[in-house]
Amino acid sequence: MDLRIGIGTDVHRLVEGRPMRIAGLDWPEETSGPEGHSDGDVVLHAVCDALLSAAGLGDLGSNFGSSDPEWAGADSNDLLAETLRRVGDAGWSVGNVAVQLIGNRPRLGARRADAEAALADRHGLTVSISATTTDGLGLTGRGEGLAAVATALVTRPGHLG
Amino acid sequence: MDLRIGIGTDVHRLVEGRPMRIAGLDWPEETSGPEGHSDGDVVLHAVCDALLSAAGLGDLGSNFGSSDPEWAGADSNDLLAETLRRVGDAGWSVGNVAVQLIGNRPRLGARRADAEAALADRHGLTVSISATTTDGLGLTGRGEGLAAVATALVTRPGHLG
Amino acid sequence: MDLRIGIGTDVHRLVEGRPMRIAGLDWPEETSGPEGHSDGDVVLHAVCDALLSAAGLGDLGSNFGSSDPEWAGADSNDLLAETLRRVGDAGWSVGNVAVQLIGNRPRLGARRADAEAALADRHGLTVSISATTTDGLGLTGRGEGLAAVATALVTRPGHLG
Repeated sequence: MDLRIGIGTDVHRLVEGRPMRIAGLDWPEETSGPEGHSDGDVVLHAVCDALLSAAGLGDLGSNFGSSDPEWAGADSNDLLAETLRRVGDAGWSVGNVAVQLIGNRPRLGARRADAEAALADRHGLTVSISATTTDGLGLTGRGEGLAAVATALVTRPGHLG
Repeated sequence: MDLRIGIGTDVHRLVEGRPMRIAGLDWPEETSGPEGHSDGDVVLHAVCDALLSAAGLGDLGSNFGSSDPEWAGADSNDLLAETLRRVGDAGWSVGNVAVQLIGNRPRLGARRADAEAALADRHGLTVSISATTTDGLGLTGRGEGLAAVATALVTRPGHLG
Repeated sequence: MDLRIGIGTDVHRLVEGRPMRIAGLDWPEETSGPEGHSDGDVVLHAVCDALLSAAGLGDLGSNFGSSDPEWAGADSNDLLAETLRRVGDAGWSVGNVAVQLIGNRPRLGARRADAEAALADRHGLTVSISATTTDGLGLTGRGEGLAAVATALVTRPGHLG
């Protein structure tokens, strides 16, 4: 079996009055949300980038560039569905994906299992979602933005290496 | 075999006069140390988060939340022992963990092998510890805090995916 | 088979007038480039650190320390060649490496495949290179520096764990 790992990070600026959509869920109680070409869901973006990275297929920018009108304002779940289609077309099966949200808000804890289940149901994805803060430091600690970091494992028939 | 990867990062603020405990070792020559609910050992925290992430068991906050008096002021080696117990109870064996300290101080180099051996002896953990700096930039470069990033591989009988 | 993962990050300050050498390529149209002991190629440095981390061999600092005149001003491709030699001498084969450049410039997209092919040709390395920005935030968003994060998979005969 050929086994590969990938990595992806994402950062989006938070702005007042934008809807907060993170980890594929809406957080209607939040008063700010990510700016972005799409919905700015850093968790799903990092997941997509980790999957594309593992499969050797480039990144979000090279696959869904901001100059491509088809993906302007895209729902990140649609980006993830198309990412998984491209990864599968290249012959790869997804082992698992792990992603960590880095930021003060939203507080993911109470809805972590819901977010994981929604991605499993919709995409058949084995995904672990976790969260941390940066003790008030840096761009996420100051609340200027949200970040996420993800890693992915993909396999296909063949030999490792 | 079912094989999963996980990821974890952590950041703690450095404050004058706090003891520096990093990578499970004391660094008595340091004049500042991490602030935190526990001892603020970003290296062990990132390791715990990567392991919980790989096993799909949430994160430090959901397992050892700051509202839980049992874990207030906890030694990070105790958090790691309990993390490994929960990962094992869920049926997972740890392959290895790799963690990188990001910051100016302490200088890990001379004691890297000691830190790895201490974690191997105490927890039976195959762990690689490394370190880097950020060229004077960002929260770690300015000495405001310390960061760490870790990844973990866990296995259990079954099929990948 | 024994299988291990590793992780590595790197940050270098950007300064006006320095040549930009990133991902093993020259970017002559850029007006600033990374400061550093070597050529400051954060992409190759993160790759080296991820490989050393996976193989349990320390990090760039412990292998090619700034006090060692042999490596002063080193070409990062030479650091990578020597890293791969040390990883191989320790009995490990490289599965793959994935690395993400985090920064505003250079725009990697159009030359991503060239960079990957150059590393495959020169080092026999299976490497995925991707890129992202941080929405104008943090040290990379402000253009103060470039960052990279990498993960690596290595194998050797034996048992996992």
